Amino acid sequence: MRARDLLEDFPTVGLDTPVLEAAGLLAEQDLPGLIVVDADGAPYTILPGTQVLRLAVPRYCQDDPALARVVDEAHADRFMRVLDDRTVREALPRERRELPVADPDATVLELAALMARTHSPVVAVVAEGRLLGAVTLQALMDRLVST
Amino acid sequence: MRARDLLEDFPTVGLDTPVLEAAGLLAEQDLPGLIVVDADGAPYTILPGTQVLRLAVPRYCQDDPALARVVDEAHADRFMRVLDDRTVREALPRERRELPVADPDATVLELAALMARTHSPVVAVVAEGRLLGAVTLQALMDRLVST
Repeated sequence: MRARDLLEDFPTVGLDTPVLEAAGLLAEQDLPGLIVVDADGAPYTILPGTQVLRLAVPRYCQDDPALARVVDEAHADRFMRVLDDRTVREALPRERRELPVADPDATVLELAALMARTHSPVVAVVAEGRLLGAVTLQALMDRLVST
Repeated sequence: MRARDLLEDFPTVGLDTPVLEAAGLLAEQDLPGLIVVDADGAPYTILPGTQVLRLAVPRYCQDDPALARVVDEAHADRFMRVLDDRTVREALPRERRELPVADPDATVLELAALMARTHSPVVAVVAEGRLLGAVTLQALMDRLVST
């Protein structure tokens, strides 16, 4: 079994997509993460769901839970509304991380090692710079436990 | 809105659960992660789905993708079968990480900051050492984008 056998269509967002829209897509389509593409449609970064959420969390409480605690319930409920039209590009962390990207020939072991190492439940499958789709943790696990 | 309003029942595994059984539970119930409890039923560790997968990936290719690449397709397909009855306890990484655990009064902002920081799509909700259930990224996102 190879990546091409587990491939599925996967929605993408652009760097200029508002964070709120990206979060909405994740929630509505029940996605494990998002593939952010550049102007050429190639994967720029791949964000696990928790890191899409991170785009929306104010920086002052990302690393200090005590600061999240002092925000009262009414304001906490609306923290995502404060984003307005802030884009994915503006919210991305500065440091780039290893991209979970594989070619269509990758074996299930390569995909599993890649997901484990990058903590990403989504691997983008790319051939000749073109995004073909994604393999999700769910699809991989389903096949792994049934074989 | 507080953690108690987003709480759902969440299955747990023990330290002596075989990794294959834990992976099967994740796949069958489409869970974003697993809560591993100790003998007293308190959360011992909480593993995002990618890190449940990591339990099954041979150590020699966890950090070196080139080594995963040399395993041929037939063996790659069956890598999980090699686990036999290896338990979660035996497969857990040695270093303990911050546990994504919250009390029932945690606000949505606290939950979001905790998920983002710990990279965990599951937060265990605990009161007086007792596991009440979990808040998932999906449940949190659904509420955040609809408010």
